[in-house]
Amino acid sequence: MTGILKTTEKNLLVFSGRTHPDLAESVARMLGTGLVPTSAYDFANGEIYVRYEESVRGSDAFVIQSHATPINEAIMEQLIMIDALKRASAKRITVVLPFYGYARQDKKHRGREPISARLMADLFKTAGANRLMAVDLHTAQIQGFFDGPVDHLMALPILADHVAEKYGSEKLAVVSPDAGRIKVAEQWSQRLNGAPLAFIHKTRDINRPNETVANRVVGEVKGRVCVLVDDMIDTGGTITKAADALMADGAAGVVIAATHAILSDPAVERLKECTAVEVIVTDTLPIAQSQRFNKLTVLSIAPLISRAIQEVFEDGSVTSLFDGHA
Amino acid sequence: MTGILKTTEKNLLVFSGRTHPDLAESVARMLGTGLVPTSAYDFANGEIYVRYEESVRGSDAFVIQSHATPINEAIMEQLIMIDALKRASAKRITVVLPFYGYARQDKKHRGREPISARLMADLFKTAGANRLMAVDLHTAQIQGFFDGPVDHLMALPILADHVAEKYGSEKLAVVSPDAGRIKVAEQWSQRLNGAPLAFIHKTRDINRPNETVANRVVGEVKGRVCVLVDDMIDTGGTITKAADALMADGAAGVVIAATHAILSDPAVERLKECTAVEVIVTDTLPIAQSQRFNKLTVLSIAPLISRAIQEVFEDGSVTSLFDGHA
Amino acid sequence: MTGILKTTEKNLLVFSGRTHPDLAESVARMLGTGLVPTSAYDFANGEIYVRYEESVRGSDAFVIQSHATPINEAIMEQLIMIDALKRASAKRITVVLPFYGYARQDKKHRGREPISARLMADLFKTAGANRLMAVDLHTAQIQGFFDGPVDHLMALPILADHVAEKYGSEKLAVVSPDAGRIKVAEQWSQRLNGAPLAFIHKTRDINRPNETVANRVVGEVKGRVCVLVDDMIDTGGTITKAADALMADGAAGVVIAATHAILSDPAVERLKECTAVEVIVTDTLPIAQSQRFNKLTVLSIAPLISRAIQEVFEDGSVTSLFDGHA
Amino acid sequence: MTGILKTTEKNLLVFSGRTHPDLAESVARMLGTGLVPTSAYDFANGEIYVRYEESVRGSDAFVIQSHATPINEAIMEQLIMIDALKRASAKRITVVLPFYGYARQDKKHRGREPISARLMADLFKTAGANRLMAVDLHTAQIQGFFDGPVDHLMALPILADHVAEKYGSEKLAVVSPDAGRIKVAEQWSQRLNGAPLAFIHKTRDINRPNETVANRVVGEVKGRVCVLVDDMIDTGGTITKAADALMADGAAGVVIAATHAILSDPAVERLKECTAVEVIVTDTLPIAQSQRFNKLTVLSIAPLISRAIQEVFEDGSVTSLFDGHA
Amino acid sequence: MTGILKTTEKNLLVFSGRTHPDLAESVARMLGTGLVPTSAYDFANGEIYVRYEESVRGSDAFVIQSHATPINEAIMEQLIMIDALKRASAKRITVVLPFYGYARQDKKHRGREPISARLMADLFKTAGANRLMAVDLHTAQIQGFFDGPVDHLMALPILADHVAEKYGSEKLAVVSPDAGRIKVAEQWSQRLNGAPLAFIHKTRDINRPNETVANRVVGEVKGRVCVLVDDMIDTGGTITKAADALMADGAAGVVIAATHAILSDPAVERLKECTAVEVIVTDTLPIAQSQRFNKLTVLSIAPLISRAIQEVFEDGSVTSLFDGHA
Amino acid sequence: MTGILKTTEKNLLVFSGRTHPDLAESVARMLGTGLVPTSAYDFANGEIYVRYEESVRGSDAFVIQSHATPINEAIMEQLIMIDALKRASAKRITVVLPFYGYARQDKKHRGREPISARLMADLFKTAGANRLMAVDLHTAQIQGFFDGPVDHLMALPILADHVAEKYGSEKLAVVSPDAGRIKVAEQWSQRLNGAPLAFIHKTRDINRPNETVANRVVGEVKGRVCVLVDDMIDTGGTITKAADALMADGAAGVVIAATHAILSDPAVERLKECTAVEVIVTDTLPIAQSQRFNKLTVLSIAPLISRAIQEVFEDGSVTSLFDGHA
Repeated sequence: MTGILKTTEKNLLVFSGRTHPDLAESVARMLGTGLVPTSAYDFANGEIYVRYEESVRGSDAFVIQSHATPINEAIMEQLIMIDALKRASAKRITVVLPFYGYARQDKKHRGREPISARLMADLFKTAGANRLMAVDLHTAQIQGFFDGPVDHLMALPILADHVAEKYGSEKLAVVSPDAGRIKVAEQWSQRLNGAPLAFIHKTRDINRPNETVANRVVGEVKGRVCVLVDDMIDTGGTITKAADALMADGAAGVVIAATHAILSDPAVERLKECTAVEVIVTDTLPIAQSQRFNKLTVLSIAPLISRAIQEVFEDGSVTSLFDGHA
Repeated sequence: MTGILKTTEKNLLVFSGRTHPDLAESVARMLGTGLVPTSAYDFANGEIYVRYEESVRGSDAFVIQSHATPINEAIMEQLIMIDALKRASAKRITVVLPFYGYARQDKKHRGREPISARLMADLFKTAGANRLMAVDLHTAQIQGFFDGPVDHLMALPILADHVAEKYGSEKLAVVSPDAGRIKVAEQWSQRLNGAPLAFIHKTRDINRPNETVANRVVGEVKGRVCVLVDDMIDTGGTITKAADALMADGAAGVVIAATHAILSDPAVERLKECTAVEVIVTDTLPIAQSQRFNKLTVLSIAPLISRAIQEVFEDGSVTSLFDGHA
Repeated sequence: MTGILKTTEKNLLVFSGRTHPDLAESVARMLGTGLVPTSAYDFANGEIYVRYEESVRGSDAFVIQSHATPINEAIMEQLIMIDALKRASAKRITVVLPFYGYARQDKKHRGREPISARLMADLFKTAGANRLMAVDLHTAQIQGFFDGPVDHLMALPILADHVAEKYGSEKLAVVSPDAGRIKVAEQWSQRLNGAPLAFIHKTRDINRPNETVANRVVGEVKGRVCVLVDDMIDTGGTITKAADALMADGAAGVVIAATHAILSDPAVERLKECTAVEVIVTDTLPIAQSQRFNKLTVLSIAPLISRAIQEVFEDGSVTSLFDGHA
Repeated sequence: MTGILKTTEKNLLVFSGRTHPDLAESVARMLGTGLVPTSAYDFANGEIYVRYEESVRGSDAFVIQSHATPINEAIMEQLIMIDALKRASAKRITVVLPFYGYARQDKKHRGREPISARLMADLFKTAGANRLMAVDLHTAQIQGFFDGPVDHLMALPILADHVAEKYGSEKLAVVSPDAGRIKVAEQWSQRLNGAPLAFIHKTRDINRPNETVANRVVGEVKGRVCVLVDDMIDTGGTITKAADALMADGAAGVVIAATHAILSDPAVERLKECTAVEVIVTDTLPIAQSQRFNKLTVLSIAPLISRAIQEVFEDGSVTSLFDGHA
Repeated sequence: MTGILKTTEKNLLVFSGRTHPDLAESVARMLGTGLVPTSAYDFANGEIYVRYEESVRGSDAFVIQSHATPINEAIMEQLIMIDALKRASAKRITVVLPFYGYARQDKKHRGREPISARLMADLFKTAGANRLMAVDLHTAQIQGFFDGPVDHLMALPILADHVAEKYGSEKLAVVSPDAGRIKVAEQWSQRLNGAPLAFIHKTRDINRPNETVANRVVGEVKGRVCVLVDDMIDTGGTITKAADALMADGAAGVVIAATHAILSDPAVERLKECTAVEVIVTDTLPIAQSQRFNKLTVLSIAPLISRAIQEVFEDGSVTSLFDGHA
Repeated sequence: MTGILKTTEKNLLVFSGRTHPDLAESVARMLGTGLVPTSAYDFANGEIYVRYEESVRGSDAFVIQSHATPINEAIMEQLIMIDALKRASAKRITVVLPFYGYARQDKKHRGREPISARLMADLFKTAGANRLMAVDLHTAQIQGFFDGPVDHLMALPILADHVAEKYGSEKLAVVSPDAGRIKVAEQWSQRLNGAPLAFIHKTRDINRPNETVANRVVGEVKGRVCVLVDDMIDTGGTITKAADALMADGAAGVVIAATHAILSDPAVERLKECTAVEVIVTDTLPIAQSQRFNKLTVLSIAPLISRAIQEVFEDGSVTSLFDGHA
């Protein structure tokens, strides 16, 4: 027979964009390797340039970029990194999104709007992504926006274990700051031994989705330590007003827990000053030293991501990290 | 100049599959036309045959099929109808789904599951669909599953106006039977002058999503007529147990309102026997005479669909029918 | 160099839908493994649910489903199985179709018809299929409907060897029941030492493709044992009338041989009562105990399929199983 | 409202490649227009250059090219013409193929072969074709190779009417030169008042598909004028040997009728010298003056193509020109 | 016949992103309409929100966005605008790029680089763009990156006419600052009555494409007014050093002419201080008041773009605006 | 766990079309293997038939075809070879193009032209190509026409080393025969120790791109041996006139160096008779014995291609062969 035979090997490579290199380095270190050396800089007019300093041919590539501010640069840089990998013959490209940008625009709230969360999925696909890995998507349906495998990782166990350890002896309630996210609160309740549920009934002005109009507590919170849970804290308005509403309704205390600490201004001010006793987040997004404050607890997401990458690389069967495996 | 010039005309054609011809005929009649005559039958082994009896070249085609039981035949027939239209040079094909099948499988609840709602969107696209029109999708994110324009129609005004007219003088509460659907209840509340919200906190066994384990009312319902709202009634277990829980919590009465009356066995028995005083649905799905009972009210969805088709055909700007336009 | 190196392994997994598990189990057993444990059931309204109980990451997956009645469920279940595999990171997905549904609608017989056989190929591709394996396609051109590799397996040697062994000492003729399928009869003739050919000239009413109008034998059959060959037996009308016409023309006997035993009503009655002495089929489709009768011989297709899967998995060069290798 | 409104017009334009301009001109003339002036020439190394001399923006473009020898140039030129139309903003591009090249490679006869007929369909799609129009495809299944509308025109009525007029008073038989094409002979039989059918049972060496091994007449031809029908005459070996076999079997005469006159060497010699009294073809392919001989009758295909283009342009409902409408 | 008939109209709509609204408004005004009212703002974390305030159904939409700094926001906003148009049923979407971002990364200069200019074309296609219109692409080959019609407009006549009018009586030379762009200089030379050509032979350090190493004038410039032409002025280093080199070589004077005034720091300083007597650019990019200086001449590109849009909308044949029509 | 595990192997196979088998054989030999035995011939009407004589399942296939005259056959044959590989389950298909046909039509020079170089890239993709390898593309931007990895090999070191060795002691100048290709001359200059640059300013009639109108030397060539460099020699008109112009301007001698020796008539005559002392080319295209002449030097490209294939197969990191790595 004609031809040259050779046993196939696969090579796990981890890449990082410029928004959150610390996280990517932690992930790589936990995997037992380093980040692939990469040149990346901006031209004078802001165009991004990327080049890898080592061969990536045939590799199983994981491109980590958290969509932090400036978010459009972050996304564009990752798209360009994927294009460079595709053209350099990487075998499989997995986009790793500790925080998935534009996830909140996951449907048309009104006519003539984009569905930017779907658009992002399509852009990644077009650039050359084969798979997608993300932590705590704003809605789980976003998994269905990508035409390919999606690993949806859950930070809930990390956050909930911290809460259970610290506040487990108190009488707890789990509270959703929003009618649309009580499903997640249900999962928290299950994890915290069936703590009762409540939510804040509020109206948002449809033209200014960052502002709330009124807050009413639905459910029983009197005398309980309320764990106020959300997927992200952006400007912090919603969640701090919710904390106030809970205290006004007789809560014994409020603990805020959220996966993604966007912390746009004036989130830090609001959180510092609000009635909550602790604010627990993960480091899916970079948190500057200047944004840190006393009652803020930052838990590391790197172990979760590195374990997931390991499994994907090794075709492992441990699926307990993923969505829906409480 | 070479060539033959001709003013372009467009021709609106309405097609119906075999699951719910009454609805399609009503829609066509309201538009001022009839259904395109179509041969459709099953071969001996169940393969579906479809052929149009009139030319469809260059037409603006609307293919109405509600995904009623037997649901896989309904979907396959519609896919085949679309293929026949594409190959017969229809200019634009809009899939009209009064009820969108598999909408509940809109995410992976656990690993190694399909996302069938996305799959359906892709199948329609592959067959040749250019646009999609649907009534009250299980989650609005499904709009983003289709790669093209989606008109998401809302039955809420039809249902809520009926409730307002009949029960407007009572002290009302709006109740979601499920933590995951309180967002819709919020829209009802807004429409019913800010009636207070409540929901049923229940646990579903993840392996048997049709069965509930326990029900706890969260929110204030005592002495109020509870409008129990959902997008669909399948076997009716969830909603009738919710009605019972509300009555047990001191509700003054329960009215059930849902867009899609799937009414799988034993839904009719359960609804007949449950504590609700009225069950209000639309005819997005066919309701057999044998499934009708005294306290069941069926409102027609045809006016909504025909107005939407009219607008799409005429590139109209009236968008108040669509999702998010309260 | 950065990165983690690992020798690549591939893992052959066999999956079965619910229409013909016996065949799939035989195939898996012959390969030396078992079927991947799979949860599959219908929701109350007929929506199909599928989940795999073991990891399928990185696997070389073969999804066996024969398109038996109810045929649309069979196809939809297989599409959903493929979607679940794609989203769970199977590396390569081969659709195994012992019987390919809608194969007879492989062209437009008249204007404004679908080409459902092409549609099916596209649906499988869209769901995520990379390859397709089928037994005795209605026309070989269907290979070209799928955008990817197709393994077209031939049952002819299995059927013909049985005929040769049992009737080899008789004076044989090979007869096609239909002018459109004489090409296959030619292959039989070649295999049976150049036995003379004949065919039945009949007219079908174009609106009712299951019914024949008239039968005329073209070719010499007097005094010969006629092997009446076809790819499938659906309602059995065509082939049993052909058998009668042959006997009326002086045939010494008739043996019916066909790959696919669809056996829609009233095929079993017709075959039992017809003049043929033996009806030879394979088990590409499930044959209920109640459908079996004395002169029916069922040959197993599992050895052919399992050998083909083995070769595909091992990149083998034995191509003698495939189409066109007489 | 913002914007500028304008009534839409469509403009039918006819384009011709360089293989068969006479036919294209006839078609354009019958439509009441001329061919769009086009620069087309070969560079020194054989690369083809094409440019249109008039605007084609927004046009309904029909690109006529018969795949005559040199066939690969003919195809490539048409692909390049389509690309130029796409990039110049033609609104709809219909590929008109009086003769569809590579139609005979419509399946894998053996392993490791291409399916070139599907490849051609995909190449046209890729270049920018929206629709396809062809005359007498080698197998009707090729319609399903193109992902879009296909108008399959039938020359049979043109040919058969000529035969009926000239030989209608004789005792006729319809004969297929090949077991694989009796279906077409059946259509002829139907058109010629049920004239009896026969076919030539021959074996081709699979490695040399242009050569036949043996010929045996199956069916009754004695004393009849045999109409020997085929879709194309390439080297003429098959059909002239068939004519001889028919005469040897006692036929009263042979008339050859075929749509596509490829007439590769030594077809003209063979046809001139064979026992047939007339050879009837159409001008789907160019026939040089030197290839014309006494008993050759060439019927014009232009009326059929121009009527079909007219209907497609006007979204007409006259479908009697198309496949399957006897 | 069934159906509702209606004459088709098309509606030209012009949209503008937020980077250069003045230009878009000029274009719309020249067309005789206004910009479609659009809500566009950034969320706190930088995510862009877009919504159109009027119906866009069925429109012929032109989305103008110049890729000015911050360039990634500009591109992302345009992608999101296109997505919103696609989902709101615009009939045709033309992306208008006065300046096409990332055009310089049009090939891999070294291994493991992206080809960002192609990526951009694919991103626009994925978002929903049907056509693309751009002014003076960095290389004309970029036309081939987009899978669809591209209108490549040339500013050269605008710039050259200004030069001819003002300096036509002098002894001119046309100079390219770069060996790679002499082709454009040739077109200038042709327009300026065959003025002789020269170019600057310089070496760029491949890792820092914004910096030059050495400059050598090739060609005769002594005693001539040199028109130094380029497609863009970014930091101005290359072109001002070229001006200096020309003066050092005995030029009588230098006039700089370029289409795109990116003017990244310290371009304005460099241009002000350089030896050139005039710097002529167009307003394809916004030029802040603070960036304007005495010897800077800004010519309007709006007439060119508005005429091109007019022609595209009306399927006009005037192609003299486009690439290659000197 | 269910399934059958197996270590994965990859198998390098080299295929050759019929235009330049000698080169392909050299490449295969240098890799240490032979060409895969392939049947390839033309049918009587020019249709190409291809079949591989050995299994290609799972292979890493490299399909070498130089686009020599007759160029359209060469391209079509390669497309058909790729289709056959795809359908026979090759794992990865790399198209190897020593000379890429239609590369000069890489943009629209005028309206209503094709961009054939992009079309070719798309045709290869459609047929099934995963990667593309080419030598000295006419413009490097063509890399961006293919949606996937492109290995762009440079013959410059091979040619330049020969020049350096033979003429290194002379006073050299590097000359581009065309304003559009000075960038390549710059690379030569760099390789030849900074030899000064010049170019020929000529005008081509846009309707006849093979003919030049006038030649003017820009740059200093007096007394120098001019290395006249280009990517290809087609009819040789441009380059031989350039040589004459250089001699007329006082050059000490002219050496012509080009990668691709198309040598269309009357190139050989022109080259023989021109003033150049040596014509150096590679064998990317076949050069007939009759086309060889005394001062022609043909260098082998096989070592470059075989090394590149080796690296691609082994995921090697040696990228010095590729574009931009001087």
